[in-house]
Amino acid sequence: MNFEITFLGVSAAMPAFGRNQTSQIIHHHHENYLVDCGEGTQLQLFKFYKKMSKIGHIFISHLHGDHYFGLVALLSSMNMNQRDAPLHLYAPAELAEILWVQNKVSGTFYHYPITFHEIDSTQSKTIYQNDFLTVQTIPLDHSLPCTGFLFQEKNRKKALISEKLIPEFSIADKVALKGGKDVIIGEKLYKNEDFTQEKRSRSYAFCSDTKYNERIVDQIKNVDVLYHEATFLNEKAAEATAKFHSTAEQAAQIAQKANVKKLFLGHYSARYKTLEGFLEESRAVFPNTFLSLEGETVEILDK
Amino acid sequence: MNFEITFLGVSAAMPAFGRNQTSQIIHHHHENYLVDCGEGTQLQLFKFYKKMSKIGHIFISHLHGDHYFGLVALLSSMNMNQRDAPLHLYAPAELAEILWVQNKVSGTFYHYPITFHEIDSTQSKTIYQNDFLTVQTIPLDHSLPCTGFLFQEKNRKKALISEKLIPEFSIADKVALKGGKDVIIGEKLYKNEDFTQEKRSRSYAFCSDTKYNERIVDQIKNVDVLYHEATFLNEKAAEATAKFHSTAEQAAQIAQKANVKKLFLGHYSARYKTLEGFLEESRAVFPNTFLSLEGETVEILDK
Repeated sequence: MNFEITFLGVSAAMPAFGRNQTSQIIHHHHENYLVDCGEGTQLQLFKFYKKMSKIGHIFISHLHGDHYFGLVALLSSMNMNQRDAPLHLYAPAELAEILWVQNKVSGTFYHYPITFHEIDSTQSKTIYQNDFLTVQTIPLDHSLPCTGFLFQEKNRKKALISEKLIPEFSIADKVALKGGKDVIIGEKLYKNEDFTQEKRSRSYAFCSDTKYNERIVDQIKNVDVLYHEATFLNEKAAEATAKFHSTAEQAAQIAQKANVKKLFLGHYSARYKTLEGFLEESRAVFPNTFLSLEGETVEILDK
Repeated sequence: MNFEITFLGVSAAMPAFGRNQTSQIIHHHHENYLVDCGEGTQLQLFKFYKKMSKIGHIFISHLHGDHYFGLVALLSSMNMNQRDAPLHLYAPAELAEILWVQNKVSGTFYHYPITFHEIDSTQSKTIYQNDFLTVQTIPLDHSLPCTGFLFQEKNRKKALISEKLIPEFSIADKVALKGGKDVIIGEKLYKNEDFTQEKRSRSYAFCSDTKYNERIVDQIKNVDVLYHEATFLNEKAAEATAKFHSTAEQAAQIAQKANVKKLFLGHYSARYKTLEGFLEESRAVFPNTFLSLEGETVEILDK
């Protein structure tokens, strides 16, 4: 069961140095989730061979333009591509007004059903789930109502312990064991617990935009991958706080307190041509830091 | 006095095959005019080294998204770039509502003055002029109210006829001659008409989006460069008409009837991967046809 994050845009408010505004594709078990949709997201999808037709759910963190300016164009292109599959949109309520006024003016009517799920940014809620995954909001501390998103696996099948398996097990027996069932061959009972182990539930937390905010630590504790905004370097720490953004070091402090496995930084300010400083300042606090870079995919493995 | 058109986006409704939505920079005598502003226009400006700070006037032909989706992002980036120079925006009235609702939601306040000039798409009007240029609207025939734009020089200085000049003329004398004045040296009068000739008034017509419409021919007669939309090839002539668009051949017919010097096609449908067909079908009617291609600049010369 694949669990991957692909970065489509990693810039803060303004695109700069080839970096586009925020957007990511989260791929989990045949589903593609789009998180944020800055200007040019549909162009980035083309560039990195991600089909817009395969996106079923779009999550928008907040209504600063760099997180949604590409949305109306993407929805419009889906329409022209004869989409008929339903689309679910999770966003602050005012986004509906922004879309509506543009469609009214252009006389656009979507030929596919869009369900708009209004996000309440004041508390964490489960806003989506299927048989394998839940998505919860993470209330953030920004100058507009803003939430991150926690993608967390559930109901994982069990893993077979290969060295304990016996030749008598058929494929059907193994499927049964993975599903948590015991197996009977002849009159002999093979108990599930002797041949399987639990697979851990993998998780990804997207946290942008926010100033340093320890209140999110409990919710993102032990996640496999944390994406945390790092708009500024330490030299601009005061500006970061004043603008409700974080520094790389602050992102690292959150990662450390939450004991996450890997931290990816992003949402770099247009003032920085190169990004090494972000890595340095973050790794000084949390060594397992990486830069999110456009077109790169992070795979979250079982181990 | 330079007069140049740079194509930033040449695609129709959807970006495709690396082609972006409509946008062009018209450069004339130290001024840069932006015509239409599809998604990603600010990225195209970066790419082709055109500074957004140098744009003083933006003209929007109509309110289909592929002609304005990049505008709010561009205005927002101008704001973040500390622009304080005035900006003039010429567009159908509803664009103000589209910008306003987004700024209201994000709490954005522009720190530079924007003057919004509402376009009346029912008749041709001069909507802008300075000492050297006028811009007139060209009413087009599209599924939404839509106008093209005619950029036309005025008050051109006269050109000196070099072979008639005499060594006695000082630089000041030549400037006077260019300005249309006679020159007196000692007691001798040198009449302007003997040493100068009129410079012709150069012109550029932008016509997108429109179905085949002979009513525009009079207004664009003899222009140096006509940009005319060519969304489809002949095989889709019926679809072109039904969607209020033109074929390459129809664009060529308009160019021929208007006796323009050069025709540039654009607004190619996303169904066409390659563009040779457009050139072939147009050149069969109007040989002096060219394809508009992103990043390319057309210079309109005096001769």
